Amino acid sequence: MKKIINSPETFEDDTLQGIIAAYGDRLGLLEQNRRVLYSRYPAADNKVGIVTAGGSGHLPVFLGYVGQGLLDACAVGNVFASPSAQTMADAISKADRGSGVLCLYGNYGGDRLNFDMACEMADMEDIKTESVIVCDDVASSPKEQAEKRRGVAGMVYAFKIAGAAADSKMSLHEVAEVTRRALSSVRTMGVALSPCIVPRVGSPGFAIADDEMEIGMGIHGEKGISVQKMMSADETAASIFRALDEDMPLSKGDEISIMINGLGSTPLEEQFIVYRAVHRLAEEKGVSVIMPHIGEFATSMEMAGLSVTIAKLDSELKKLLQQPAKSPFYTNYNK
Amino acid sequence: MKKIINSPETFEDDTLQGIIAAYGDRLGLLEQNRRVLYSRYPAADNKVGIVTAGGSGHLPVFLGYVGQGLLDACAVGNVFASPSAQTMADAISKADRGSGVLCLYGNYGGDRLNFDMACEMADMEDIKTESVIVCDDVASSPKEQAEKRRGVAGMVYAFKIAGAAADSKMSLHEVAEVTRRALSSVRTMGVALSPCIVPRVGSPGFAIADDEMEIGMGIHGEKGISVQKMMSADETAASIFRALDEDMPLSKGDEISIMINGLGSTPLEEQFIVYRAVHRLAEEKGVSVIMPHIGEFATSMEMAGLSVTIAKLDSELKKLLQQPAKSPFYTNYNK
Repeated sequence: MKKIINSPETFEDDTLQGIIAAYGDRLGLLEQNRRVLYSRYPAADNKVGIVTAGGSGHLPVFLGYVGQGLLDACAVGNVFASPSAQTMADAISKADRGSGVLCLYGNYGGDRLNFDMACEMADMEDIKTESVIVCDDVASSPKEQAEKRRGVAGMVYAFKIAGAAADSKMSLHEVAEVTRRALSSVRTMGVALSPCIVPRVGSPGFAIADDEMEIGMGIHGEKGISVQKMMSADETAASIFRALDEDMPLSKGDEISIMINGLGSTPLEEQFIVYRAVHRLAEEKGVSVIMPHIGEFATSMEMAGLSVTIAKLDSELKKLLQQPAKSPFYTNYNK
Repeated sequence: MKKIINSPETFEDDTLQGIIAAYGDRLGLLEQNRRVLYSRYPAADNKVGIVTAGGSGHLPVFLGYVGQGLLDACAVGNVFASPSAQTMADAISKADRGSGVLCLYGNYGGDRLNFDMACEMADMEDIKTESVIVCDDVASSPKEQAEKRRGVAGMVYAFKIAGAAADSKMSLHEVAEVTRRALSSVRTMGVALSPCIVPRVGSPGFAIADDEMEIGMGIHGEKGISVQKMMSADETAASIFRALDEDMPLSKGDEISIMINGLGSTPLEEQFIVYRAVHRLAEEKGVSVIMPHIGEFATSMEMAGLSVTIAKLDSELKKLLQQPAKSPFYTNYNK
């Protein structure tokens, strides 16, 4: 296992300690639970809190979006594993400023189960919560069962919009509603070219042949729709764009943001080559593109591949997306 | 060759077109030479221009640092190859606002030769130029021949400081002098765990065994100091820190910035694990750390590995480093 680590057992805590060594002026770990990362950025006294949780191994997802105009706290699990309900409850408790907390997270069994328990624990502390679950991966279930879909890179749009909504002094229910509305217009699909290695496992969980790619693979290596011969960047982009457009039809005059998300070892150059093709396909439909996101936003350690997300925007969502936000891992400086 | 591209021949231009599709409001390509990328950000009329040049395959280096408070223009070569002298001259010409242009680039034979010619061409157009060459890689030559060292990730500190100096209305010679002074206190060393594939070549130029790492390898796969068994993150950090500290001794009370630069497929988690160790070693020497940079700043496509850069700062260099700057690829928002 070729990784620059100290040991599989200390992987997550070593990473967190590195993050605090670098950014301890802006981020902190709870004294009583070192798996809760919280924002030290200034924030309004009574704003709604936003919390997420998930496994390690996806940086900058999840904890990289703790910041200003973004998330208030994040519960951190082991690689590809949900954190405990208690850790989530501690994150909720830290994020509450008296106006309640939105729990915003990907659609995975462990996270759902633990967040449900954590919300009950918060309720006993008289903290109001609402939950919004991200299900943007069109490859993971058919449209008729969209509620079964996994949450992948599209969650970054949800973090950004929820954070801006909370900063706009919306109530908990209003923040939850606008985030749900944003997510109803977010779709993602990815391709993988290589597996990745979970440190505690030490070997790849699956293989992809040298001349093949897996269409629709999940960010933990969950099976995709099909395995096929390597396609060109333009063919890959067209295939993904078609699938997203079928699932959420785009029309002339629509405004969208496009995210090209590198999964780990796919160079930025290749991400821009795919962006070029997706941008053209959108323009050919008369769709205009604002605030493109190209880079690594939700990774699977050293997996090769990328995902494409389309977020369709109305005027309110566009305003929330453009509202300034920052964390050590994400800056939306809006030119 | 498992890459998401259209063809090796169009790799660079497809990438540039993707970048302009995404960021055309902030960056442009010269009409008469589509290998010159320039900044569209507002800038003072008579400020000194800063230009760099280099091969593709290292994003965000080189062109990712064209922006505000950074570079004014960049000449873009094919993967791992210098652009032509004419392309450099076009970049210089575009960047000149009447106060002259600093040519700031890595110490590679092709780039030096072509920049020398480009500066002569600029001279015939009555554009004043000065050149500063980045030689930060301590593994590439012994200290007595420091002028033979290659330029690697440390050049990002030079871009940042030169850009801030130019924005501070310094003269061309003053910008060159402060950039040279900054570079006299910048040292880098890296380790590689895997090779990368140049698209036009189609296969790796070298191999590294499954249980080995190469210490001191260059960003084009140039031979390092030694090949050895995989070390832990803490051992790797200690080995690099020792080499940097021997070359440029650090003393109690010094202020430094540390950059951990992922070469391509090394996950951000591992970069933070190494940062944790380097930060500790600095603190143990009584050295304080400001503005850490952790992420991918100068890559070698899908190469696995990372480099560590230490930039020692005095009060003027610190101020220039902290001065706000932005490009679509780099933001120094200083909290």
